[in-house]
Amino acid sequence: MKKIAMVGVGNTKVGEWYERDLRDLTDEAIAKALSSTNIDPKEIGATFVGSMSSGLFNQQEHLSALIGPYSGVKAPALRVESACASGGNAFRVAMMALHAGYCDTALVVGVEKMTDLIDISDVTTALGTAADGEWELGAGATFPALFALMMRAHMHKYGSTLEEFASIAVKNHHNGALNPDAQFQRPISMETVMNSRVIADPLRLFDCSPISDGAAAVILTREDLAKKYTDDPIYVTGSGAGTDVIALHNRKEITTLESVRKATETAFKMAKIQPKDVGLVEVHDCFTIAEAVALEDMGFCKKGQGGKISLEGETALNSTISVNPSGGLKAKGHPVGATGIYQTIEIFHQLRNEAGKRQVTNNKIGVTQNIGGSGATCVVNVFSRGD
Amino acid sequence: MKKIAMVGVGNTKVGEWYERDLRDLTDEAIAKALSSTNIDPKEIGATFVGSMSSGLFNQQEHLSALIGPYSGVKAPALRVESACASGGNAFRVAMMALHAGYCDTALVVGVEKMTDLIDISDVTTALGTAADGEWELGAGATFPALFALMMRAHMHKYGSTLEEFASIAVKNHHNGALNPDAQFQRPISMETVMNSRVIADPLRLFDCSPISDGAAAVILTREDLAKKYTDDPIYVTGSGAGTDVIALHNRKEITTLESVRKATETAFKMAKIQPKDVGLVEVHDCFTIAEAVALEDMGFCKKGQGGKISLEGETALNSTISVNPSGGLKAKGHPVGATGIYQTIEIFHQLRNEAGKRQVTNNKIGVTQNIGGSGATCVVNVFSRGD
Repeated sequence: MKKIAMVGVGNTKVGEWYERDLRDLTDEAIAKALSSTNIDPKEIGATFVGSMSSGLFNQQEHLSALIGPYSGVKAPALRVESACASGGNAFRVAMMALHAGYCDTALVVGVEKMTDLIDISDVTTALGTAADGEWELGAGATFPALFALMMRAHMHKYGSTLEEFASIAVKNHHNGALNPDAQFQRPISMETVMNSRVIADPLRLFDCSPISDGAAAVILTREDLAKKYTDDPIYVTGSGAGTDVIALHNRKEITTLESVRKATETAFKMAKIQPKDVGLVEVHDCFTIAEAVALEDMGFCKKGQGGKISLEGETALNSTISVNPSGGLKAKGHPVGATGIYQTIEIFHQLRNEAGKRQVTNNKIGVTQNIGGSGATCVVNVFSRGD
Repeated sequence: MKKIAMVGVGNTKVGEWYERDLRDLTDEAIAKALSSTNIDPKEIGATFVGSMSSGLFNQQEHLSALIGPYSGVKAPALRVESACASGGNAFRVAMMALHAGYCDTALVVGVEKMTDLIDISDVTTALGTAADGEWELGAGATFPALFALMMRAHMHKYGSTLEEFASIAVKNHHNGALNPDAQFQRPISMETVMNSRVIADPLRLFDCSPISDGAAAVILTREDLAKKYTDDPIYVTGSGAGTDVIALHNRKEITTLESVRKATETAFKMAKIQPKDVGLVEVHDCFTIAEAVALEDMGFCKKGQGGKISLEGETALNSTISVNPSGGLKAKGHPVGATGIYQTIEIFHQLRNEAGKRQVTNNKIGVTQNIGGSGATCVVNVFSRGD
């Protein structure tokens, strides 16, 4: 299978954009992506939009038709949704379209505008639609509650500690402070995390990613056309996806995400790499427990050690493996349907040595891991430079 | 490009299923599709779900993970949304996945459960999210109002009449009365349509498709694997999609759908056919005006004549061209995100001579045309038998 090349990217700063609407955000991201390479909007052959719940957040479906043509890209467009993995799967569908020959170049846009809802409980409800409405939310669960169950089970089974999880938040805030596009650009201390108020025991406030607005766009093309658009394309060398049952109570165990294992296995096999070959990885740390489990299920450490290696500094910037150099969902922010594209853009900049103060030196191979809901969906992509 | 084969199908009767939930409907459709061919659920390589707004209708996103694994299909899954063309585009993404070699067999499920909302105005609001929220709905438009504008402009420009449009509803109810899976199985008279109450002038009640619940599933595979699953596969020989600006006021004119023209041109070119080669077509008659414009923009008649050829009987069952033998959205029903898959299933049965009392005899080539919103999105597919 031929490689897919990423030739242009653009995004808004992640934040709380009360004064802007969804289309205003995507316009900025698309305009930046188009102008980052010398492509005519008419050359775009297809548009793929990733968004989790513009219906509930913004009373707006049919985003694909709303966004593309408004930005001057009149190519056939569709939206992909798989909760917080909407961006990752939109990217993957664009790869399918390119590999299948349905287009020569594709625009992929991830967007979520979460601050339009006045009542914060409506945001919690909208995010809850990523879980099983009848069997989880109907029983009183919220999204933090589901991850709290996973975290408690992990602490029970592996003896992992609050300090280990807290260290993940501290690391990601450290990195976010070096990222001008991050929502939070302030380092925090272990004490800040440990003493923050309980959201869903054992999760503290600083174990949780924020509510965010943001849009991110990438332009993809076939390997043989890449040099037409940029001197320094970044290639997707592997891609994998996995889907598991949605409700936690239906899974064999809740401290392992089968979707992550499957997606990683597929992507790494396609890219012909081992975990040890990876210099940096953007993982889906919607909660600190999620980063720990991601690192374990992707094979970057032994099962149960995902928090421990963070506390020991092995996942810090330019340590053994740089995990979430962007600041991750925790500090860079988590506009849910856009997150998969933001992760991809971070890898793009890192592999091109454009990441400024947070530049990773071991940047030959970068990986993204994007999950939906409490991990029923996962998309993993592997990227490398051309050389 | 190799042909894609449809080897199994299944669907619920379209109706108002107050006593059933969304997952119950998809379970029935998937189970029927799986059992219609001798496929093991484990052989399914990927699942694609088309749904317009399960978020607003059912407070449930992440349908892909909810539906697939619950039905025993644990393949990587994602949802595709493009308003009422969600089903058509989910089908198209499955084709991309097969053409690109990401899977050997794919399950495509279309579903919408529209009767969960207690207040009917909430249903109108949810459907309105297919239009431009800021510039159309914000100005007081509803979906019927947008199509009423198109109908009035069509009457003004081409001298088309209420009788012509009414005849489309009469024809489709005639066909629906022959379809045991249709929501409405009663013939209606011209007088019934003409004397029905005004919804959005000039649209009458019987110019409008109903609010519906339904789920439909198809199993696709590569051409070379088709005979493993059925003796009588139906092949997709052409596929096209088009996207135009979403707001009516931004279009060059509102009596022509550029998305339909582009999708048809692409699909017919790929299938190497002309309009005259088509024996039957399922078009997206969400309102009677939509069927008229579809037939015009697909090249089945001159511009402005889409209603006239209906009144003259040319689009009746087994006349010049059989249009909406299933009863169309008007009589078969319109569970919005599922409609594109229901259209496909009708063609499947017609081409296999399994359509009972509504069997079309000129059934060598069948076509589906599925639009999203007021036509900003369109997907057209061309089907033929193997012989």
